[in-house]
Amino acid sequence: MFKRTASLLKERGVAAATLVILADRARANIARMAARTRTAGVRLRPHFKTHQNPVVGDWFRAEGITGITVSSRAMAERFAATGWNDITLAFLVNPAELTPLSELARALQARGGRLGLTVDAPAVAGAAAAAAPDADIWLKIDTGHHRTGLPWNDGAALRAVAGSLGRPPAGLLTHAGHAYGLRDRDALVGLWRRIRDRMGHAATLLDIPGLRVSVGDTPTCSVTGDLSGVDEIRPGNFVFYDLMQLEIGSCSAADLAAAVACPVVGIYPERRQVVVHGGAVHLSKESLSTSGGPVFGRVGVLDPPRILDGAIVTGLSQEHGVITFAPEAFPGATDLAPGDPLLIWPVHSCLAADLLEVRPRPSSLILS
Amino acid sequence: MFKRTASLLKERGVAAATLVILADRARANIARMAARTRTAGVRLRPHFKTHQNPVVGDWFRAEGITGITVSSRAMAERFAATGWNDITLAFLVNPAELTPLSELARALQARGGRLGLTVDAPAVAGAAAAAAPDADIWLKIDTGHHRTGLPWNDGAALRAVAGSLGRPPAGLLTHAGHAYGLRDRDALVGLWRRIRDRMGHAATLLDIPGLRVSVGDTPTCSVTGDLSGVDEIRPGNFVFYDLMQLEIGSCSAADLAAAVACPVVGIYPERRQVVVHGGAVHLSKESLSTSGGPVFGRVGVLDPPRILDGAIVTGLSQEHGVITFAPEAFPGATDLAPGDPLLIWPVHSCLAADLLEVRPRPSSLILS
Repeated sequence: MFKRTASLLKERGVAAATLVILADRARANIARMAARTRTAGVRLRPHFKTHQNPVVGDWFRAEGITGITVSSRAMAERFAATGWNDITLAFLVNPAELTPLSELARALQARGGRLGLTVDAPAVAGAAAAAAPDADIWLKIDTGHHRTGLPWNDGAALRAVAGSLGRPPAGLLTHAGHAYGLRDRDALVGLWRRIRDRMGHAATLLDIPGLRVSVGDTPTCSVTGDLSGVDEIRPGNFVFYDLMQLEIGSCSAADLAAAVACPVVGIYPERRQVVVHGGAVHLSKESLSTSGGPVFGRVGVLDPPRILDGAIVTGLSQEHGVITFAPEAFPGATDLAPGDPLLIWPVHSCLAADLLEVRPRPSSLILS
Repeated sequence: MFKRTASLLKERGVAAATLVILADRARANIARMAARTRTAGVRLRPHFKTHQNPVVGDWFRAEGITGITVSSRAMAERFAATGWNDITLAFLVNPAELTPLSELARALQARGGRLGLTVDAPAVAGAAAAAAPDADIWLKIDTGHHRTGLPWNDGAALRAVAGSLGRPPAGLLTHAGHAYGLRDRDALVGLWRRIRDRMGHAATLLDIPGLRVSVGDTPTCSVTGDLSGVDEIRPGNFVFYDLMQLEIGSCSAADLAAAVACPVVGIYPERRQVVVHGGAVHLSKESLSTSGGPVFGRVGVLDPPRILDGAIVTGLSQEHGVITFAPEAFPGATDLAPGDPLLIWPVHSCLAADLLEVRPRPSSLILS
């Protein structure tokens, strides 16, 4: 069972920790979300922070997607360089980056596209609007997550930021990150409705013609059957899903489309453990809490792709992953050997992809 | 207070999340450990996975260090490329990487240096010794951490692996990772002695002339006053230390030598929170458990560098960090503004450095 998966991966040249993207599943996830938004007449502006991969970007293009979401200036620049022209940076503007953001907005505008920027404070909003006349400015709305954004029901605050722009905002944008605390589809559907209604209320308070409404998180966008009341959605994780989404209830195991292949380096039958070269720098330290302790990933196989019972990543250090097997699940000596890649389903596919794919690498500063 | 730190960082060009290395402190940490090993006649072979930075490597060179430790083949190749010739890969050999490891061993040997490899199973040991005749082969010993290695008191297992090499092993190597579970200097000193004694016992069981003993972890190596009984130590984290080491009790706050500067993007006085562009992809999701919930970092200032009370990173998502302030600690409107870099002491400096410094980026594999 493990040997077959290891052989498939070795044939493809896997010798070190590698993100394994299951194309058919990822494309099906994309097609399903794209079809739902087309039917509803809602724009899908997928968040590309999940995959950060130009090839996966092309799969979105094939579904007619032309606008994307990113979470950093560097990511915006990277996807602009691969031909994306309509990019919303759904992360509050960092005023220290206004010069490059302004340049990027001008470049996208010249290509017939658009950079969207996000603000929630009057001073930053005014500075961003002035520095980047070519950008769309979105107001970030706090619809209950309480991370960033203007309170959805604070008309004075909304008007203060909108008024500081010197031009109408492009719209209102929110992220229902608190969806990650739910574990039930009905609760997710209820949250979707509450978010949509709160965004509608905020729009009413502002009363600006043409104001768009953008919402986005994979859990609620995956389960709601009614996308009415918004102009666009910005889920990202749905392209791969992961163990966290499975626990939330927003996907099924058959939707999981990204795993991490990690070579086995040690086998310890006496404690039913296998150690792989796959640690915090490959999977991230994101974990699920269980009565048996934290879960950092679950072991699976390919052909067909599935999760195995009784094989849990129970420990992660910088480069090591420790997998603990149930007695009946421990691989036989002929089924798994050092050097064999073992497939691990990550808890949070966005972080695993960020660690294993191309990403910006800020430099260090040495102070004496 | 925050403004002064922000100004110092802005003057140095910090506009996005950046690892800030305090050179004087890091060099003092290096000098202290180097002096202790010189006095004891023990070799210091520092683990470079903590910093992964050639400039920091030069600081070690200035203290007379010629041999280093790394945790992956890619890291070994990177430091070999910056002129390090004596490198121990303190991570079990991945048989899928034997060809490049053999080439690296030959290249280092040709430069008058040496590659050290680590094994704990007969088949891998035999294959590694045969494939890399120029490499030193170390036996990984489990002295109680139970992650990898041969049990320190299992003479038959030790002899089986040693016998499979076809030449004498270079020595015995262990990592007391369970030191991270202790919170008391006396307990750490006790663990150091137990590890040393167990390594001595394992060496006696093998009874091979010239066998070296290598131990290494920052907590025990930082506190023991007696380095006798070992040939070399391999701590790494001590160059920077971090909040975890502070909690363990292996350093003082004045030893902390690496922080992460993260620009402020949102300020929320009503909930005494500040949001920075510094998330799981900059700090890692490593956390300390406290009665008040997980701590992902603590806020500090420069000039002089210190930790502030009542300013905790209480939440981390992919790119966002949420800092919660005690009432008396919340910054005034003139002291902190969006765009200002805020200094955060990380929980685990090795992971923050890995995220923010140059590191190998494996590619993804797309399967259909």
